[in-house]
Amino acid sequence: MKICIIGQGNVAYHFYTALKDKVETVKVNSRTLTGFVQDADVYVIAVSDDAIEATSRNVINNLNDKITVRPIIVHTSGSSPILKPDNDRYKTGVIYPAQTLSKHIKTNYSAIPFFIEGSDKSSEEILAHIAGLISDNVRNAKSECRQKIHLAAVFACNFTNHLWVLAEEILKEKGLDFEILKPLIKETLNKVENTSPFYVQTGPAVRYDKTTINSHLNSLKYNPDTLDIYALITKSIQKHHECH
Amino acid sequence: MKICIIGQGNVAYHFYTALKDKVETVKVNSRTLTGFVQDADVYVIAVSDDAIEATSRNVINNLNDKITVRPIIVHTSGSSPILKPDNDRYKTGVIYPAQTLSKHIKTNYSAIPFFIEGSDKSSEEILAHIAGLISDNVRNAKSECRQKIHLAAVFACNFTNHLWVLAEEILKEKGLDFEILKPLIKETLNKVENTSPFYVQTGPAVRYDKTTINSHLNSLKYNPDTLDIYALITKSIQKHHECH
Repeated sequence: MKICIIGQGNVAYHFYTALKDKVETVKVNSRTLTGFVQDADVYVIAVSDDAIEATSRNVINNLNDKITVRPIIVHTSGSSPILKPDNDRYKTGVIYPAQTLSKHIKTNYSAIPFFIEGSDKSSEEILAHIAGLISDNVRNAKSECRQKIHLAAVFACNFTNHLWVLAEEILKEKGLDFEILKPLIKETLNKVENTSPFYVQTGPAVRYDKTTINSHLNSLKYNPDTLDIYALITKSIQKHHECH
Repeated sequence: MKICIIGQGNVAYHFYTALKDKVETVKVNSRTLTGFVQDADVYVIAVSDDAIEATSRNVINNLNDKITVRPIIVHTSGSSPILKPDNDRYKTGVIYPAQTLSKHIKTNYSAIPFFIEGSDKSSEEILAHIAGLISDNVRNAKSECRQKIHLAAVFACNFTNHLWVLAEEILKEKGLDFEILKPLIKETLNKVENTSPFYVQTGPAVRYDKTTINSHLNSLKYNPDTLDIYALITKSIQKHHECH
């Protein structure tokens, strides 16, 4: 098996790092296709969602007419639908790692949940095999399902991280370090270990503590974007708990 | 030393649990003052912010004229200012645990950051001693500073937990379990272990990935509150990163 990874971003980097010692793997510049190989079994297009279509077109155009295997052209995106093959010279698929990946941060690959889709049964099996070389946590998921997982992941990871950025900013105003919130953040995570986050909601919003909410809104008045986020999430918490 | 804890909520419960084996501690119903003792050195008013003023008034009115010690009347709120003593028969203070506490969830007390304030030096020392019986992480913080810590904690903890509620809801639409996001959430926390969350922001917002953002907004159109939260946090992420 030979895998050709196309892309220079975080996901391409980690796919290459996770696979290079386990299977023949080459990494290719997505813009120039420098290093492109004709005989890969799987082409992994790990580029931004906006560039998947054009990059896959490029890869298909570069495939030699004489190749005998039908390679699988794969993307790694949570939110893009599986590519539709427009001829029978190749198959398509998706390997979506539901994980936040940054180049400079080491990750425990074996715990990453991978979601697999293939244009046919055999591609699905091959992709599950490849994901299985990286992780112990591999499942099938059709595009519509995968899109929901990705959307949920944006809330649970990207947006959560941004709330921490806002918290850090608030502390900096008083010369305080983000470090002091770490025990709290860890405990927030511990609390959902065995239960739904719904049941462990705490804070002024769920207590309908108007005095505190008003004092918070007041102290955010010079930061209207953060104030809007405060008001909106507070309203959403209260709506979720109003029938309970 | 004798401590009288007033309240029936999560914070009162955990203060009592953490202190009862270390110092003479009684717990009192905040509405009826059933079990109230005259000779406590410290009265800990652990009630909702809206009720602190009335409860402290009640406690003060119940203090016998003949007591010889000057007790410290303390609240545990992040966002309420320290009570102002209106005569010299008592002192005041704050013991604020920057932690999310739920009755049914065990907590590692020794890691909780406690923030202390006292109406004079000696109350501050006594309160730091009491907090030190619970935790290894005790600091002084005046009211204005503590309010910022509390506001930051609302973002980092309460609001984060609510984003997980929204993520869980999105997954449920497809019969998927919140469990699949746990590795991602853990990694989100790992990534800020040694760096500011600003530097590890990932996701469609910071990539300005319009295709994905539009597809997410589209899939949230039947849930306008969650859609507004998505749009607002996306905008805030992009504003934070636009100069970088």
